Amino acid sequence: MPIRILVAGGTFDKEYDELGGRLFFKDTHVEEMLRLGRSRVAVAVQTVMMMDSLEMTDSDRRTLLEQCRRAPEKRIVITHGTDTMVETARVLQDGVLDKTIVLTGAMVPYAFGSSDGLFNLGSALSFVQVLPTGVYLAMNGKYFPSGQVRKNKKLGVFETLDSSS
Amino acid sequence: MPIRILVAGGTFDKEYDELGGRLFFKDTHVEEMLRLGRSRVAVAVQTVMMMDSLEMTDSDRRTLLEQCRRAPEKRIVITHGTDTMVETARVLQDGVLDKTIVLTGAMVPYAFGSSDGLFNLGSALSFVQVLPTGVYLAMNGKYFPSGQVRKNKKLGVFETLDSSS
Amino acid sequence: MPIRILVAGGTFDKEYDELGGRLFFKDTHVEEMLRLGRSRVAVAVQTVMMMDSLEMTDSDRRTLLEQCRRAPEKRIVITHGTDTMVETARVLQDGVLDKTIVLTGAMVPYAFGSSDGLFNLGSALSFVQVLPTGVYLAMNGKYFPSGQVRKNKKLGVFETLDSSS
Amino acid sequence: MPIRILVAGGTFDKEYDELGGRLFFKDTHVEEMLRLGRSRVAVAVQTVMMMDSLEMTDSDRRTLLEQCRRAPEKRIVITHGTDTMVETARVLQDGVLDKTIVLTGAMVPYAFGSSDGLFNLGSALSFVQVLPTGVYLAMNGKYFPSGQVRKNKKLGVFETLDSSS
Repeated sequence: MPIRILVAGGTFDKEYDELGGRLFFKDTHVEEMLRLGRSRVAVAVQTVMMMDSLEMTDSDRRTLLEQCRRAPEKRIVITHGTDTMVETARVLQDGVLDKTIVLTGAMVPYAFGSSDGLFNLGSALSFVQVLPTGVYLAMNGKYFPSGQVRKNKKLGVFETLDSSS
Repeated sequence: MPIRILVAGGTFDKEYDELGGRLFFKDTHVEEMLRLGRSRVAVAVQTVMMMDSLEMTDSDRRTLLEQCRRAPEKRIVITHGTDTMVETARVLQDGVLDKTIVLTGAMVPYAFGSSDGLFNLGSALSFVQVLPTGVYLAMNGKYFPSGQVRKNKKLGVFETLDSSS
Repeated sequence: MPIRILVAGGTFDKEYDELGGRLFFKDTHVEEMLRLGRSRVAVAVQTVMMMDSLEMTDSDRRTLLEQCRRAPEKRIVITHGTDTMVETARVLQDGVLDKTIVLTGAMVPYAFGSSDGLFNLGSALSFVQVLPTGVYLAMNGKYFPSGQVRKNKKLGVFETLDSSS
Repeated sequence: MPIRILVAGGTFDKEYDELGGRLFFKDTHVEEMLRLGRSRVAVAVQTVMMMDSLEMTDSDRRTLLEQCRRAPEKRIVITHGTDTMVETARVLQDGVLDKTIVLTGAMVPYAFGSSDGLFNLGSALSFVQVLPTGVYLAMNGKYFPSGQVRKNKKLGVFETLDSSS
C-alpha cells in the first residue's frame, strides 16, 4: 500500500519572492524532491496547508489529525515547520492509534543550495517504512518517538528530552 | 554505538577534473553530505577504496567483507557504485552474519546539482538504524534484502527480482 | 590598475538565518563568486555597507560617493540592492566625473540555486573594463547609462526610460 | 539588432549520462542560463555543433566561420570548448573582418554546482556589446584579442602571450 505524504508547509517549502524580496509559500517541492531522489516508493502527496509552523493553530493541528485519520494508508509522512513539529506530533499521538506517522522538515529551504531537505525527506520516507505504529519525528538523521523530543532552538537541532547536549 | 560508514567510491564520489575534462575520484563527499543534512548520528567514516564498481574485483569485495567483520559497530552503511552493488551485497551476505549492513550509492555524482546522493544517504542511514540483522540495498527510497534485487540497467533503477515493472 | 569592487549589500548577499527563519546579511559572497567564476581580474573588494537598498539613506549614498572618490582605481563595480540602484547611480553621477562606475545586483540571493548573481557579476565586471567614463547599471545582461533607466517593479527588470515593454 | 549566439559545445554543455556513467552532449544549456541570468538581451541562439573542442577539425572551424559570415548580426558570441578556443579564434580572425566576435567557454560543466559557465556567459555577452570589431576570447573575467592569448593547460586559465604568470 502506498505511503501518504501530507504537506503542511514549513521551511521546506519556503521560496524567494523576487519582486517583494521576501520568503513566501507557493507550491510544495516534495514531488520535485522525490524525482531528484529517483524515488520509486508509491506515494500519494496531498497538500493540507502551506504555513510557517509558528502560525499554526490548534484548529490547524486538528485538520492534520483529521487527514491522518481519513487517509486510507497505514504509513504517513508529514512535512512540517520545525518550530512546532513537537506540538503537532503530540496532537497526532493522542488522536491516531494504529498508524506509523513520521514528521520531518528542514532548517534551510529546499530552494537554497545548502538545504538539509533532501536528506531529511530520504530519511523520513525510509523510517516510515520500517518503524512500528506510532508518531515520530525524523530530523538530523535520527528518529525520535513523539513525547521524547524537543527542538533545541539555540542550536537548531532536535534532541531527546533527557539529553544534555 | 555509532554507525560505521565504509566508503567504496562509486558515482557518489565522482568529481570533475577541470584540467583533464574527465570524471575522477579524489576524496569522499560523505562527511560534507552529513554536514549538509545536519546529521547528528554518531558515525565513523572510513574510506576503504575509491573506485568505479565496474572495476571492482573479488579481492576488493573480500577487503570490504573483512572491514565489515573488523568494525566494532553492529550497523554499517557502505557507499558503493551501483553497477555491482548487488554482487558485493551477496559476498557480504555470505560472510557477515550478525550485523545490519546497508549499501547505497547514486546515479548522479554528488557534485552535480541534480544528484540523488543526499536523498540516498539520508535513506540508507535511516534504514540501517531500524532494520534487523542482514544485508540490504537502499536505493530509490526503498530497501531491498540482498539476493532479492537487481539493477535494471536500462531504466537505471533497482527492482525486486520478481518485479516486472 | 586593478578594479575596485564596493559592496553595498542588497539581495546579492542575503543569507538564510536557519535559527530565526529569516533572510539576513552576514558577509559578502563577492569573493566566493569571483573564485567560482575563475576570475583573474585584479580586484580590491571593499565592504562599505551591508543593507537592503530600501533602507538606504542620503547619508549612505554620500558614503558610497565618498568611497568612489577616494578609491585610487579609475574603474569601480558596486554591488547594490536593486530597489534603489537607480537613485544611488544618480548621486554618483552628480559627484564623480572621471571614473567608470558600474552598479549591479541580483533579483535572487546568490545562496539560492536559482540566483542571477553570478551572471550579473560577470557582466558588470566586463562592462566596467570597456565602457567610457560615466555611471552605469548592469542588469539583465545589458548596461544602462545612469539617468536613462528605471526598475520596472512589476516585472522585476530594468528598462530604459522611454521603453514601453 | 540582436546578438547571435553560436553554440559549438565544449565543457559548457557536457551532461552526465546516468545510465552509462559518462559525460556526454545532449542539448545546449545556453537558453536556460540566459533565463537564470534574467537576460533581456535580444539574442538568436543557434546550435552549430556539440563537441569536445579537442575533436574539432579544420572543417568544423570552417563551418563556424561560415556561420559567422552568414549571420545577419554584427555581434556574435560563440560557446566553445576551451582546449582549442585559441585556434578557432585565429581562423575566425583571418576570415571575418567586420564583426565583433567573442568566444567563451567553461572549465566545469554548467550542470555542476561549481561551474564558471554562468559567470563567463554574462561576461561574454557584455563584452560583445561594447568591444570594437574583432575576434576575442572572454575567459576568467577578462577579454583577450585573438592572437595575443593562450590557454595555460597546467593552471587551466587563459593568459596573454607575453605573460609570465
